[in-house]
Amino acid sequence: MAVYTDVTDEALFAFLAPYDLGAALSFKGIAEGVENSNFLLHCERGRFILTLYEKRVNSDDLPFFIGLMEHLAAKGLSCPLPVKNSEGKALGELAGRPAAIVTFLDGVSTRKPQTFHCFETGKALAQLHLAGQGFPLSRPNALALDDWAPLFDACRAEADKVSPGLANEIAQELDALQRQWPCDLPQGVIHADLFPDNVLFIGEKLSGVIDFYFACNDALSYDLAICLNAWCFEADGSFNATKGRALLQGYQSLRKLDREERLALPILARGAALRFLLTRLYDWLNVPPGALVKPKNPLEYLDKLRFHQMIDHAGEYGLSE
Amino acid sequence: MAVYTDVTDEALFAFLAPYDLGAALSFKGIAEGVENSNFLLHCERGRFILTLYEKRVNSDDLPFFIGLMEHLAAKGLSCPLPVKNSEGKALGELAGRPAAIVTFLDGVSTRKPQTFHCFETGKALAQLHLAGQGFPLSRPNALALDDWAPLFDACRAEADKVSPGLANEIAQELDALQRQWPCDLPQGVIHADLFPDNVLFIGEKLSGVIDFYFACNDALSYDLAICLNAWCFEADGSFNATKGRALLQGYQSLRKLDREERLALPILARGAALRFLLTRLYDWLNVPPGALVKPKNPLEYLDKLRFHQMIDHAGEYGLSE
Repeated sequence: MAVYTDVTDEALFAFLAPYDLGAALSFKGIAEGVENSNFLLHCERGRFILTLYEKRVNSDDLPFFIGLMEHLAAKGLSCPLPVKNSEGKALGELAGRPAAIVTFLDGVSTRKPQTFHCFETGKALAQLHLAGQGFPLSRPNALALDDWAPLFDACRAEADKVSPGLANEIAQELDALQRQWPCDLPQGVIHADLFPDNVLFIGEKLSGVIDFYFACNDALSYDLAICLNAWCFEADGSFNATKGRALLQGYQSLRKLDREERLALPILARGAALRFLLTRLYDWLNVPPGALVKPKNPLEYLDKLRFHQMIDHAGEYGLSE
Repeated sequence: MAVYTDVTDEALFAFLAPYDLGAALSFKGIAEGVENSNFLLHCERGRFILTLYEKRVNSDDLPFFIGLMEHLAAKGLSCPLPVKNSEGKALGELAGRPAAIVTFLDGVSTRKPQTFHCFETGKALAQLHLAGQGFPLSRPNALALDDWAPLFDACRAEADKVSPGLANEIAQELDALQRQWPCDLPQGVIHADLFPDNVLFIGEKLSGVIDFYFACNDALSYDLAICLNAWCFEADGSFNATKGRALLQGYQSLRKLDREERLALPILARGAALRFLLTRLYDWLNVPPGALVKPKNPLEYLDKLRFHQMIDHAGEYGLSE
């Protein structure tokens, strides 16, 4: 849960003054988002999310995130639209933090994805990839292949405390990925964190995609691999091929994977599993005192990694030829 | 901040089925309330707060709290109104916890009360006291005079770690209050926790009173003493007599204090200060591991207690004769 910074009513009203939103009718800190403080803001002109960007977010990246949401919304993706104040600025400062207001999207995220959720998410991911074309800014992936080794170094010494043999297993996988990682796949803007809590549904209809604060430029099919991991495994660790098929079909209903992308899918899925294994391991070993967020278990992603190591070709994910 | 219990979308939809609220459009855990888990629920028929009652709340008390909100709302107080399902029940079960849906009240609470906030709050408190007349259920105050000694015993040994001499000072005050505590003041339903975060404003107008989970039967003027402490001291610990006067005037604009209540006000204010000093001290010394709530500094209430010990008569609070 995430409200790291206190906002007084006085500071809020001063911040809102140059926006054309009418009077503030309610303002509630919400228990969502790990990196930032988020508030649900209801004004006479509608409902909004007010975000204070905390230290973990590099403020140099904010124009990319804000601009991307504007670009994607303009292209028809249902995502939060940054609201500009009377000076035409979407980014301001509140309580000593960079802050922005975006439109609120209706919908409820799912905790237990069903097949239809996976299909709709695949489709929305492809829509996002297509809509991202032509976005003029770029941002390198700060958690790409080259970043995994230093991340591993930072937790290598303590990894075996979490699970015996873990350090060695990660070292071998990192080595394998560095040798085999595909470099020439179609690139573009990726969401990079499209987990179930970032996709909203009203009934069986996808109503919105949120939380663009990991978005960056990378291989589009790597984004799909992240979703395979996030959406298609059951709570017991088993891979649900029906959901895998639905995710991939949904994606391909709007954007066909090319031959290289299909061939690369197992290795991309391994990389995506290792990336979340490493960040979760780091967070697990580095819980700050007084942390308000309980770290997620890294070993869930070790199981996923092992699953992908046994995959020979993408057909096993449910990808039709 | 408070979301102690996870609610899946499946469990939510099943819980909502017997309510006539239409489809769930959004559902966000909110960072408010210390005792319970609170969610902002937006349905086709409006906005609501869904509360899961956590272990610190005695489920036997829930009919009192729910019934009281219904009673007060029916008498015209702007407070949350419990919503009944098709079986006529306002109290159900969700995620293994007792749960209720109440109407959402617009408004923003203030962090820095100004004089008009104090006047409006005093008035609303009197309105609550008058509206509470005739409410058929009753609930003894679980944090009344007789409960302070055992609470003190539970933290006596460590009190001096928080501030040298604190244990002795509390013991003396407890002794003084036990000798002087008034027993025959007008009784009724009191809110017992009407702090600024439980009062909502739209502009200068009070729009609602929330969080009735400490409400109980006790001396009405003790509730006013709690408000004097909660609303009329500045951040530097000084008492603002202008705000005190406004609070008392607001209250007396609807309900006149009688002679006994006026005379008792300084001792009630000392008791109210000691009650919050003790509960904050207990929480300060007993932070559970993994706590998501940062305990409040108990010494703020030691300063308030010392202030009231110097008061001879209620005129010093700004009470006009």
